[in-house]
Amino acid sequence: MSSNYQKLVQRLEETSRLGGIMGILHWDQEVIMPTGAADSRAKQMGVLAGIIHEKSTDPAIGELLDNLNQENSFNSFERCNIDEARRDYEMETKVPKSLVMELAELSSKGHQVWVKARSENRFSDFAPVLSQLIELKKRWAEYVSPNLHAYDANIDVYERGMKTDDITPVFERLKSELIPLIREIQASDYKPDSAFLSGDFSVDKQEALGRAISEEMGFAFDRGRMDVSVHPFCGGSHPTDVRITTRYRTDNFIESLYAVIHETGHGLYEQGRMKEGRDLPASEALTMGVHESQSLFWERMIAQNRPFCKRYFPLIAKTFPENFNGVSVDQFYEAVNTSQPSFIRVEADEVTYPMHVILRYEIEKGLFDGSIEVKTLPELWNSKMKEYLGVEPPTDTLGVLQDTHWSGGAFGYFPSYTLGAIYASQFYQTLIDEKPDLGKEIESGNLATIREWLNQKIHQKGRLLSVPELIKEVTGDNLNPTVFLNYLKTKYRTIYRLN
Amino acid sequence: MSSNYQKLVQRLEETSRLGGIMGILHWDQEVIMPTGAADSRAKQMGVLAGIIHEKSTDPAIGELLDNLNQENSFNSFERCNIDEARRDYEMETKVPKSLVMELAELSSKGHQVWVKARSENRFSDFAPVLSQLIELKKRWAEYVSPNLHAYDANIDVYERGMKTDDITPVFERLKSELIPLIREIQASDYKPDSAFLSGDFSVDKQEALGRAISEEMGFAFDRGRMDVSVHPFCGGSHPTDVRITTRYRTDNFIESLYAVIHETGHGLYEQGRMKEGRDLPASEALTMGVHESQSLFWERMIAQNRPFCKRYFPLIAKTFPENFNGVSVDQFYEAVNTSQPSFIRVEADEVTYPMHVILRYEIEKGLFDGSIEVKTLPELWNSKMKEYLGVEPPTDTLGVLQDTHWSGGAFGYFPSYTLGAIYASQFYQTLIDEKPDLGKEIESGNLATIREWLNQKIHQKGRLLSVPELIKEVTGDNLNPTVFLNYLKTKYRTIYRLN
Repeated sequence: MSSNYQKLVQRLEETSRLGGIMGILHWDQEVIMPTGAADSRAKQMGVLAGIIHEKSTDPAIGELLDNLNQENSFNSFERCNIDEARRDYEMETKVPKSLVMELAELSSKGHQVWVKARSENRFSDFAPVLSQLIELKKRWAEYVSPNLHAYDANIDVYERGMKTDDITPVFERLKSELIPLIREIQASDYKPDSAFLSGDFSVDKQEALGRAISEEMGFAFDRGRMDVSVHPFCGGSHPTDVRITTRYRTDNFIESLYAVIHETGHGLYEQGRMKEGRDLPASEALTMGVHESQSLFWERMIAQNRPFCKRYFPLIAKTFPENFNGVSVDQFYEAVNTSQPSFIRVEADEVTYPMHVILRYEIEKGLFDGSIEVKTLPELWNSKMKEYLGVEPPTDTLGVLQDTHWSGGAFGYFPSYTLGAIYASQFYQTLIDEKPDLGKEIESGNLATIREWLNQKIHQKGRLLSVPELIKEVTGDNLNPTVFLNYLKTKYRTIYRLN
Repeated sequence: MSSNYQKLVQRLEETSRLGGIMGILHWDQEVIMPTGAADSRAKQMGVLAGIIHEKSTDPAIGELLDNLNQENSFNSFERCNIDEARRDYEMETKVPKSLVMELAELSSKGHQVWVKARSENRFSDFAPVLSQLIELKKRWAEYVSPNLHAYDANIDVYERGMKTDDITPVFERLKSELIPLIREIQASDYKPDSAFLSGDFSVDKQEALGRAISEEMGFAFDRGRMDVSVHPFCGGSHPTDVRITTRYRTDNFIESLYAVIHETGHGLYEQGRMKEGRDLPASEALTMGVHESQSLFWERMIAQNRPFCKRYFPLIAKTFPENFNGVSVDQFYEAVNTSQPSFIRVEADEVTYPMHVILRYEIEKGLFDGSIEVKTLPELWNSKMKEYLGVEPPTDTLGVLQDTHWSGGAFGYFPSYTLGAIYASQFYQTLIDEKPDLGKEIESGNLATIREWLNQKIHQKGRLLSVPELIKEVTGDNLNPTVFLNYLKTKYRTIYRLN
């Protein structure tokens, strides 16, 4: 093996381990840290972030990469690590330090301003910071990817290789078919009964239920944990240390249970990464969208589907017997698949969710190409909500101010959610084509087939393929909204008795 | 303020924060980490240790210290930080890197060899590593403190400024009076009844009890946590993030409760550090011995004393009513003060504990001055046990192999335990001289007087005074074994009805 490559590997492993440490500090902060430690933890994380930045912009890496440019004879794993290292190094070093610092400061300030503006329902307080953040991110994009449109450069951070030219037609297609479907569902006389999902559910029982199902999905608790945090997430420090969280409401167990299933989907991706080179980028999860495809696969394709409901309804009914007296599996299945327009993205169901994303995507695109002005956002937001979902938020707190992403400068992140949902539906279609008996397997409690299939087809692939290559290899198809639309239309037309 | 000083402060704060991060990684590893993450965590800690070493040996610190040598006009806090920085820098840089690495590797290997040797009761497997470790630590001492005896240089790491010339006469005095006292106690016809301390104690109840008492002692749970680990310890990342642990046995609650009290004593020291400059060495706990004086103060001077037993016996009896039916406070007090020679240091009571320490101290001293050979240790250990405590361990696992310290090269640590016990007794004597009503205050549930006194006299002092200066300032006396001996003799002669 090339000595330059070995030196690069050493540096990449060091950065990866420091990233793992940051993961623990973050998890600890969200889950377990005493409240009084907020200040000291922020300073600890600041020092560590500085060191990671220092290490990953060390000119010695640039020299190694230059030397490696002269060499050949790398296998695909090695080649991938070199390419990933180059991508990171360039992203870190192309931007002048002054701009990096300006962005860091404004993101941190932006978050505080946003928290206050949201709680006081005053978009005008947040608007100036938002404008500045967009300006900085445009300048940032020019340094990082001078050949890309500024918004594409931002999208590339989360969903590499994906551009507005790819996304816009897909999202247009979704709009053209989902808006009518949402209307039809709204107009349907039939509404699933979900009253029995409300009640009084002890946290202990919820936790035991979630843990049992997560374990049956294959989450390895000797290489992971499940805890409680304000917002559910999947974090940790390494594929051998994957930590999912959920939150509990005593009046609703479904939210928490499906959060566990969702985060377990993320967790299985991390735990299922290739066994070799786990501290190297080639082994890492591919993109935000592919990560989301794994959580949504389990949450929606599997757990919101009938066979899974059939399998686990008895356990659920046994756990909360008062609530499910006289309730059938079919009623339960329909109840967990209620579709209903709402103001808040994170509470949306799988039919309405894409419209929340498309709305944000269109706004971000317009903000970056100059066709939309920040000050018009509240009005624009509300009119798009009306058009896409038929509801209009009464306040900006429930509208344009609801999400944290923009306050930290994370533009281009939102599309990943819906791209992930489309990938998930395509993966699912392929899986059931390959395994026509999958439903029966699930009903009999065998979830290993699913886990192993995802593991072999996706988790083990790391970053060796691009997203389009991966989709093609797994499904034989390109990114295809038709599969996703057919899935949603078939499922919800049946549930809502639409002709 | 001098700009050199400010630059030094920045570097010291960075190192302190990295140390805090190491604290969290360590706590997480001991308390919460999934077992499968052991390997990846070791690598993360290795990378972080490397960075801390790199940062603290940066020649720029040496230059700053040289420049600061030319300056005056520092206040005592600033002067202390400069002195502490110099001490650390010299300790880190005087030793050649090759020796640092040899020591790190041998300590790590030594630990593994020791674990195996202990479990298999084969001292001969551990002996070669032990010999090598002593050789390396002798070489290390020559670099670090060429003017000190090698063992004194090792002691200085844990109990700075203390030398064998100071310790030996104190320990000789303890031997001369404790060995006869231990014999007398053994020979006494009277034995406190402690049968009621055995039983079946639910972990939940033990935890609630420990937490309640820790809180009354003043441990701030918004700046700390209490959890479970294999060995109780006090860790964390900052005075605002202090984490104590205990362990639970269902057949004995006293061990766990007194571990909580002991660790709370350590925790109060950390939480009580001065409010300014908390990321600077001048604010840190002074030495291992002083730290131990704080935990032992609460555990022995306070919680094993009669007023505390009077105060908390009703709560304890209410928590475990089946066990304390018909038991009096006096019986409880005597039961928690049973003295009995045993093989294992960490299970020893306050009368016999010093003999375990003195035995180790004499052996370490002999190993470093060449008067004792490693291969003779098992025999020597057993004969000293017989002489000092009247018992002889049946195996080396219960004898010379019991403690982990030597396997990691931590020679010179053991004396801190007993120095801490002596400091604690001297502090306590001073406190009751100053507050003759202390017993009544404790009985009425007021522990704040104690906490505030320790805080003001010791915690807030950080490292501004040396240990002898601190003892003198607080007690008006020097290190004085007489106070400790009088305390033990008075207390145990009464309990064991010795004329």
